[in-house]
Amino acid sequence: VKAAEARHVRILDEGLALISREGLQGITLGILAERAEMSKSGLFAHFRSKEEVQLQLLEHTRAFGARHILAHVMEAEEGLPRLRTLVRNWFGWAGRSGLPGGCPLAAALFELDDLEGPVREKVVEMDRGWREFLGSVVAQAVTHGHFRSGLDTDQFVWELCGIYLGHHASERFLRDPEATRRAETAFEALIARARS
Amino acid sequence: VKAAEARHVRILDEGLALISREGLQGITLGILAERAEMSKSGLFAHFRSKEEVQLQLLEHTRAFGARHILAHVMEAEEGLPRLRTLVRNWFGWAGRSGLPGGCPLAAALFELDDLEGPVREKVVEMDRGWREFLGSVVAQAVTHGHFRSGLDTDQFVWELCGIYLGHHASERFLRDPEATRRAETAFEALIARARS
Repeated sequence: VKAAEARHVRILDEGLALISREGLQGITLGILAERAEMSKSGLFAHFRSKEEVQLQLLEHTRAFGARHILAHVMEAEEGLPRLRTLVRNWFGWAGRSGLPGGCPLAAALFELDDLEGPVREKVVEMDRGWREFLGSVVAQAVTHGHFRSGLDTDQFVWELCGIYLGHHASERFLRDPEATRRAETAFEALIARARS
Repeated sequence: VKAAEARHVRILDEGLALISREGLQGITLGILAERAEMSKSGLFAHFRSKEEVQLQLLEHTRAFGARHILAHVMEAEEGLPRLRTLVRNWFGWAGRSGLPGGCPLAAALFELDDLEGPVREKVVEMDRGWREFLGSVVAQAVTHGHFRSGLDTDQFVWELCGIYLGHHASERFLRDPEATRRAETAFEALIARARS
C-alpha cells in the first residue's frame, strides 16, 4: 500500500509540473503515462479518466501551493504583518517552488472560463476558498486597527487578486525585471487606501 | 481574388471564435478546417502550418479588438476623458463584440508564458504595443493637467492592466455580477492617486 501511494504521489508530481507549463487542458493520460514512465493501462489503475486526473491534480496543486504560500504565515502577527507575509509568499510562489511553469490556478482562470463541468467547478471552489482566506486576513487587519473600520474587504481582496494576476503576467510572460517592484508599489498603495 | 480574400477572412473569423473559447493552443488545422467547412488540404492553401494560423489569428485579433476597443476613443477629449472612454470600451470588450469566449490576448499571457517561439514573441509585441498606447493616453492626461506631473505612467499602466486581468477573471470565470462595479472602483482609486 505504501509503495502504491508513493507511486500515486509521484504521478501527481509529474502531472503538476505538466499543468504548470501546459495548462489543465494540455494533460492527457498518454502524456502523463509517458512522463511517469508507466504504461497507459498502468495509469488507468490510478485514474479512470482525464477528468479524474485533472480534479486530483487541482487538489494536489492546492496542497503543494499551500505548503509554499502559507509557510510561516501563521507565525506572523495577526493583521497587516500577516497579510504582508502572505503576499510576499504568494506572489511568484510557483517559480520559487521549483515548478517549471506558472501558477496552475491563475492559468485556469483564463483557460477554463468558457467551459462547463466539474473541473471548472473545482477551480471556482478553490478560487472562492482562497479569496475567503485572504478576506479573513484582511478582516483581522481591520479588527486590529491596522485598516479603517468599514473597509470593503471584498473590494480589497478583488484588487489584490488583480495585482497578483498583473504580476504573474508581467513576471512570467513579459519577463519584466521590474515586476516585483511594480507589484509592491501597487500593494502598498492598496494598503494606504485601506488605512485612511 | 476578392472571393479568395473573403474566404480567408471567414476562416480567420472562425479561428478567432475558436481561440477566444479554447486558447491559441487549442487550435489545429483539422479543427479549423471542420469549423470553416473545408477540407484540410483546402485549408493548407491558406496556411502552411499551425504556427502560421496562430500568427495570422493574432493579427486578426488585433484588428478585430481595435475596432471594438478604439471606437469613438479619438473623438473623446484628450487626457482623462479619453482614458475613461478607452477603459469603458476595453473592459469586457470580448463579450460585447459577440465573441463566444474571452479576450484571446489575456488568455495568451497565461497560456504561453512558458513556451518559446514566434507565437509567444508576437503576443509579447502586441502586449507591448498596447501598453505603449495606454501609456500615451495617460501621458496626455499629465500634459493636460488632469494627472500630476511626474506621475509614473508605466506604473499606472501596469496597475490598469492588473485591474483588467482581475476583471476578466471575475466577470468571465467567476461570473461575478459585481465585476464591473469592482473594476470601476479600482480604476477610480487609481485615477485619484494619479491626481494627488
